[in-house]
Amino acid sequence: MKKKLTGTVKHVMVGEDKHTLETSSIPRVQVTFEGFVGDQHAGLTRLSDVRVPHYPRGTVIRNTRQVSMLSLEEMADIAAALHLPEILPEWLGGNLAFQDIPLLTMLPPSTRIFFPDDTVLVVDAENLPCTGPGEMIQQHYPIIPKLVQAFPKAAMHKRGLVGWVERVGYINEGDTVWVQLPSPVTYSY
Amino acid sequence: MKKKLTGTVKHVMVGEDKHTLETSSIPRVQVTFEGFVGDQHAGLTRLSDVRVPHYPRGTVIRNTRQVSMLSLEEMADIAAALHLPEILPEWLGGNLAFQDIPLLTMLPPSTRIFFPDDTVLVVDAENLPCTGPGEMIQQHYPIIPKLVQAFPKAAMHKRGLVGWVERVGYINEGDTVWVQLPSPVTYSY
Repeated sequence: MKKKLTGTVKHVMVGEDKHTLETSSIPRVQVTFEGFVGDQHAGLTRLSDVRVPHYPRGTVIRNTRQVSMLSLEEMADIAAALHLPEILPEWLGGNLAFQDIPLLTMLPPSTRIFFPDDTVLVVDAENLPCTGPGEMIQQHYPIIPKLVQAFPKAAMHKRGLVGWVERVGYINEGDTVWVQLPSPVTYSY
Repeated sequence: MKKKLTGTVKHVMVGEDKHTLETSSIPRVQVTFEGFVGDQHAGLTRLSDVRVPHYPRGTVIRNTRQVSMLSLEEMADIAAALHLPEILPEWLGGNLAFQDIPLLTMLPPSTRIFFPDDTVLVVDAENLPCTGPGEMIQQHYPIIPKLVQAFPKAAMHKRGLVGWVERVGYINEGDTVWVQLPSPVTYSY
């Protein structure tokens, strides 16, 4: 039998300012069915964007991108690929930065992450990297050229996950989480 | 390139009576972020039950089981396995009965089903068969013994799916739907 898949919450972050992707660290956050209290991406619904091209732009759809989750190990890989000393999870608009969850970004849709203070998050999808976080990184390293353009490739399959709240509660810096994979399903037609 | 995966809505059903699993056919239903208007399983949240044993029984969780979807071909297979002339989707508490979607019950979590009147449903999971629907079938074939006990085995991987509303709209009997599979993900640790 496989070892239980676990990890640690190293940073809890929220971003209230809709004019920037950047988030700020806090020690503890309340989690409702809308998402993280005080975060700009919280809400039961959202307007469709370029990430869901099968909807007319601006359609009201259920918000499955309430929370952005990052892996510190994957962020170190991105920094190394860009020859940078470090990238902070706040720059990528992260709400959670985990340590010790292997290949976080590859966790499949419907994976559940259980937190000790009741919260359960469900993985919607891999967060596909675009140039937005590259712009934040560029601002922090203004003398290094072309970070905006280089970010998406360097961050592919390492930019973390987005997900939604299945059970409300709190999340604290330092929490140990348990990761439950969905049953593997094979479908072909 | 593969042929587009499509199917047809043969029955639209709602069940208002919380004392029975059985649903009734209607020609058209309004679909909100809560589910099918007038159906007992509609709601943004639900109380956890035996299907989610990782939660204390009765915990308020997000309702990902708003809609029950069935395949007429799979229901014919269940009827054949039980040596019955037919099983109606209403007896299984179905909200939708599809035709021509191959292996409906095996569609993976996060599969999206697009309806022409705007509605989009997302697959949460296979609906694991229990004895409840067997009791409904038994009521309709009172002289045939042990249908209750035989149902779960006969219906395994053929009892359809449950899912939730991503985009609101209407669903009509006769609608042609388009099925979008999620990107395949492989994860091992």
